[in-house]
Amino acid sequence: MTVLALLAAAALAQQPAPSELVARAGTEEWLPISPSDVLVLELRPLTKGKPRRVVLQLMPAPFSQGWVANIRTLAAAHWWDGLSINRVQDNYVVQWGDANGDDQVKAKKLPPGLVPVPASAYVAPVPRVMVAVAGGGSSDAPALPGLLAIRDAYAPQVGVTPQGWPFASDGNSYWPVHCFGMVGVGRELPPDTGSGAELYVVNGHAPRHLDRNLAVVGRVIDGMEHLSSLPRGTGAMGFYETAAERVPIVSLHLGTEVKGLPAYEFLSPAAPSFTAYVAARLNRRDPFFVTPAGGADLCNVPVPVRRVK
Amino acid sequence: MTVLALLAAAALAQQPAPSELVARAGTEEWLPISPSDVLVLELRPLTKGKPRRVVLQLMPAPFSQGWVANIRTLAAAHWWDGLSINRVQDNYVVQWGDANGDDQVKAKKLPPGLVPVPASAYVAPVPRVMVAVAGGGSSDAPALPGLLAIRDAYAPQVGVTPQGWPFASDGNSYWPVHCFGMVGVGRELPPDTGSGAELYVVNGHAPRHLDRNLAVVGRVIDGMEHLSSLPRGTGAMGFYETAAERVPIVSLHLGTEVKGLPAYEFLSPAAPSFTAYVAARLNRRDPFFVTPAGGADLCNVPVPVRRVK
Repeated sequence: MTVLALLAAAALAQQPAPSELVARAGTEEWLPISPSDVLVLELRPLTKGKPRRVVLQLMPAPFSQGWVANIRTLAAAHWWDGLSINRVQDNYVVQWGDANGDDQVKAKKLPPGLVPVPASAYVAPVPRVMVAVAGGGSSDAPALPGLLAIRDAYAPQVGVTPQGWPFASDGNSYWPVHCFGMVGVGRELPPDTGSGAELYVVNGHAPRHLDRNLAVVGRVIDGMEHLSSLPRGTGAMGFYETAAERVPIVSLHLGTEVKGLPAYEFLSPAAPSFTAYVAARLNRRDPFFVTPAGGADLCNVPVPVRRVK
Repeated sequence: MTVLALLAAAALAQQPAPSELVARAGTEEWLPISPSDVLVLELRPLTKGKPRRVVLQLMPAPFSQGWVANIRTLAAAHWWDGLSINRVQDNYVVQWGDANGDDQVKAKKLPPGLVPVPASAYVAPVPRVMVAVAGGGSSDAPALPGLLAIRDAYAPQVGVTPQGWPFASDGNSYWPVHCFGMVGVGRELPPDTGSGAELYVVNGHAPRHLDRNLAVVGRVIDGMEHLSSLPRGTGAMGFYETAAERVPIVSLHLGTEVKGLPAYEFLSPAAPSFTAYVAARLNRRDPFFVTPAGGADLCNVPVPVRRVK
């Protein structure tokens, strides 16, 4: 390598890490997350005085809104309070709901107002815009904002919506994806059987084969470590084998009901700092790295979320 | 959908799950893992009589053999015995070694025989074979066995070696990858500073940007749940903030020194059942799935490993 090339490499190596770019983002580049779009899960503390609080953000339109409406109904009814985490499968999911849900006698009664959601709602149609065509007149064409120059093993296109949610697309429809920390709706075999009462959180490598097969309805934005560090269940599919192993849910309420909840915000995908962050994720040139990858998996480019300072 | 199309869809839906294909594989399709290529990590039990044993398989040639030799030396010297897990960063890594390693007075003395390994060993050259060329004579051309038809965000090509290890390649060189459960060598800023004394295990979504920047030297083949469920550290980068939080290592020995160790085997990538397993992973058509992805991430196609029955 020539001296000039070495100097150029050294200059590249001085570029900031993704986390530094996020830390430098201007206040105006962050957008608020409304407490009305947040759920707060309180698990029974392991140690007195040390709460185990997990904060979840609900998915905005155009994705999964039927299930999200059901989840709002269930949370408003305090339906999950007193139930438990019943399943922790390593490198897959943590799942909670009614451990007696399959027992017609013991099952906890669901609140009124839950609506069945069809499997067709696993995807949303790609927005279309009118464009002029050669020879006059106009026609509509797909116009999907937020596409990223990322190769994906599961779909032809991927990106992040203006509201800050990763998606995949086949050009005609688009859908939310199963990354680490994403929240989904458990179901039985028929694809329209998930009400939202059984919820899971991804605790390992993104199980993207679940995309379009289960509803993604939100993500953990704080306290993920309380879910990811739970003991793994030893039964089939990671279910706890005894009632004593289950993790009691003290409450799961809407953010608007929780006193003293911190305010949260996300880095707007339209912000210049977001663009710089994505570029840095795709090519790590901070000092630790000797060989930047020239790419990154969609789930390794998580939208930055933080407590408002 | 016509009735015939529905029937076809139903027939597709009857295909076995990847796990079923693996369970059906013939005995002759499995290859043994030698106890001499295994490390056994015993963590201090949380509950008396409930061991926390993690079994690691060391990486075979052509990858990372300098570090693997050092690790064999460290294990044979029982160097890790009495040390601890000092770092658990959520969705990233679990790391162990000498918590006093940076303290010149308190640091535990390393055994003799450790050899520095250059950063060039992060990759191996792609094998080349002689091929006939038009007009007579011959030339050498790259011949990389085990390539898979998988799109990858980090590299132009990916696959699994005949010895059962996932890799990525740029056509000239190839290298092992950071999937969930993979073991790597911690280092300081200069890329040749990792001896193998500090080891980490990936506990979340594959941090593939570390490929070619840190040495991958093995993988967890049993007991991963004892690492993935550890409490997360609250210090910078997930380090435990107090000595009391660290997880004591009772021993970390070569498999040949461990009495009563089960025998392990892996599904040969050359076996027909492996091919069927990969195809099923790329297109889930077992009954639960309504929309097969048509692809899968390399790290979501883990090479099946099991205890010998």
